[in-house]
Amino acid sequence: MSGNTTSPSVSSSISQQPDANLLSINTATVRQQWTLDKIIEGCARHEIRGISPWRDQTQALGVTETARLIHSHELTVTGYCRGGMFPGISPQQRQHNNDDNRRAVDEALELNAQCLVLVVGGLPAGSKDLSGARMQVRDGLATLLDYSRSVSMPLAIEPLHPMYAAERACVNTLEQANDLCDELGDNGLGLAVDLYHTWWDPKFFAQIKRAGLRRLLAFHICDWLVPTQDLLNDRGMMGDGVIDIRAARLAVEAEGYRGFHEVEIFSANNWWKKDANEVLMTCKQRHLDCC
Amino acid sequence: MSGNTTSPSVSSSISQQPDANLLSINTATVRQQWTLDKIIEGCARHEIRGISPWRDQTQALGVTETARLIHSHELTVTGYCRGGMFPGISPQQRQHNNDDNRRAVDEALELNAQCLVLVVGGLPAGSKDLSGARMQVRDGLATLLDYSRSVSMPLAIEPLHPMYAAERACVNTLEQANDLCDELGDNGLGLAVDLYHTWWDPKFFAQIKRAGLRRLLAFHICDWLVPTQDLLNDRGMMGDGVIDIRAARLAVEAEGYRGFHEVEIFSANNWWKKDANEVLMTCKQRHLDCC
Repeated sequence: MSGNTTSPSVSSSISQQPDANLLSINTATVRQQWTLDKIIEGCARHEIRGISPWRDQTQALGVTETARLIHSHELTVTGYCRGGMFPGISPQQRQHNNDDNRRAVDEALELNAQCLVLVVGGLPAGSKDLSGARMQVRDGLATLLDYSRSVSMPLAIEPLHPMYAAERACVNTLEQANDLCDELGDNGLGLAVDLYHTWWDPKFFAQIKRAGLRRLLAFHICDWLVPTQDLLNDRGMMGDGVIDIRAARLAVEAEGYRGFHEVEIFSANNWWKKDANEVLMTCKQRHLDCC
Repeated sequence: MSGNTTSPSVSSSISQQPDANLLSINTATVRQQWTLDKIIEGCARHEIRGISPWRDQTQALGVTETARLIHSHELTVTGYCRGGMFPGISPQQRQHNNDDNRRAVDEALELNAQCLVLVVGGLPAGSKDLSGARMQVRDGLATLLDYSRSVSMPLAIEPLHPMYAAERACVNTLEQANDLCDELGDNGLGLAVDLYHTWWDPKFFAQIKRAGLRRLLAFHICDWLVPTQDLLNDRGMMGDGVIDIRAARLAVEAEGYRGFHEVEIFSANNWWKKDANEVLMTCKQRHLDCC
């Protein structure tokens, strides 16, 4: 067998609850209900200590104002969403992407984010060259690392589910992300492990172990619903689906990870339609019960 | 790097067309328009030499009558869809699954199928134990092999896209399928390589090479649409999506594969709504142009 498919060391501690202080909210979770300033205030009001804002929301509010609000509410920015999207059909487009990624690093710095999360991009328009796109990702990442290392902003590669390989990210497994860390060096480079994207992977536990503490920069949670109605916006609240979230959380903690557990739920027909306070309270309870 | 991500040997022969006689139609492709007897006659009329019938259609028409019709039209049964679904919540349910799989082998024999295609099954109802489901798959497969080998019916494990891990198949990569062949022996056991499920895999070409001629039992084609609107029934006709089908076909042929290229398209809002003759004619043309 080419990978360890089981998690024997964690199954015995299944009742061990997570640290409530480690809950973080990715702002996508309530973005349909609240603007970013309201989300920041809402997290603080609900005693949620971590937040991960998206770039478009941050730019709408203003990066400086976002940083000020987050700081005044004493929240930790567990990641900045997002950089990446490296591939492009022309050198000019790739240069444009690289420039934009540098700005994302600068914004992450101003927000005092723990890392810049990278959704690496998929096939350039009209292309079927997936191997080529993956090489462009590696090259773009190498270029960005020259800068991000110089300013000490860690980059977290987020492998996305293979159903997003064409349009969003051609890095689709933890193994690929670990391979990139091997190739480019893991000084200031690591992984954002999102269970929605990786729970199915037969090498999940082996690759978490391979990553180790040094590379585990972020841990994102939600659930995989059965059936899933939509490829993009039908993610489940923790406990409503089939992911063994606790086993995964214990696996990253077994490597020494003590960072936040970031809830990121895209849910057009359910959670995005509920009152945002109810969503945050549910996140808090489910975090304790299911993670 | 843990796998060969490129296909340098095939990119130079991109213009090499496939053998038109190797087109096969999986009956799901026109199942909304025609009953199985009409599909058999339609394939023969369009000079399509291969067919892969589904079990429910075959049982509706009668296995013996299906075999008679297919034989009289001199079609090759390139695979029988499908056995598998090994996991179950109880030993009784797994025994039931095993018994049903033996009957599927018997039907495949009566149809003179080249292999029985296996969709191995996902999580049992209420379970989050994906590793356990995978062990149940291995055990069920081992049991079925005792029988299938005794009657010389090859079993073809079909890795399904990871988006089907929960409900349909927890074997989601060619590497997993190759691992199972290593573990259980590849006498009478191999792979059904369906590009819809595997095109995204960074190890695709390396695992085709690892499989080699002995394990390459079936080759299924269609395309991945951008965007894909539905998780189940929005597959594309060859050429309408982003899969480099020719590179994949040349890769299996580089291993010596000279079997059929089976078109399997689930398409609720497009191809299932068109006249079935038009669909078959389009399959023929696109097979030559894009495969």
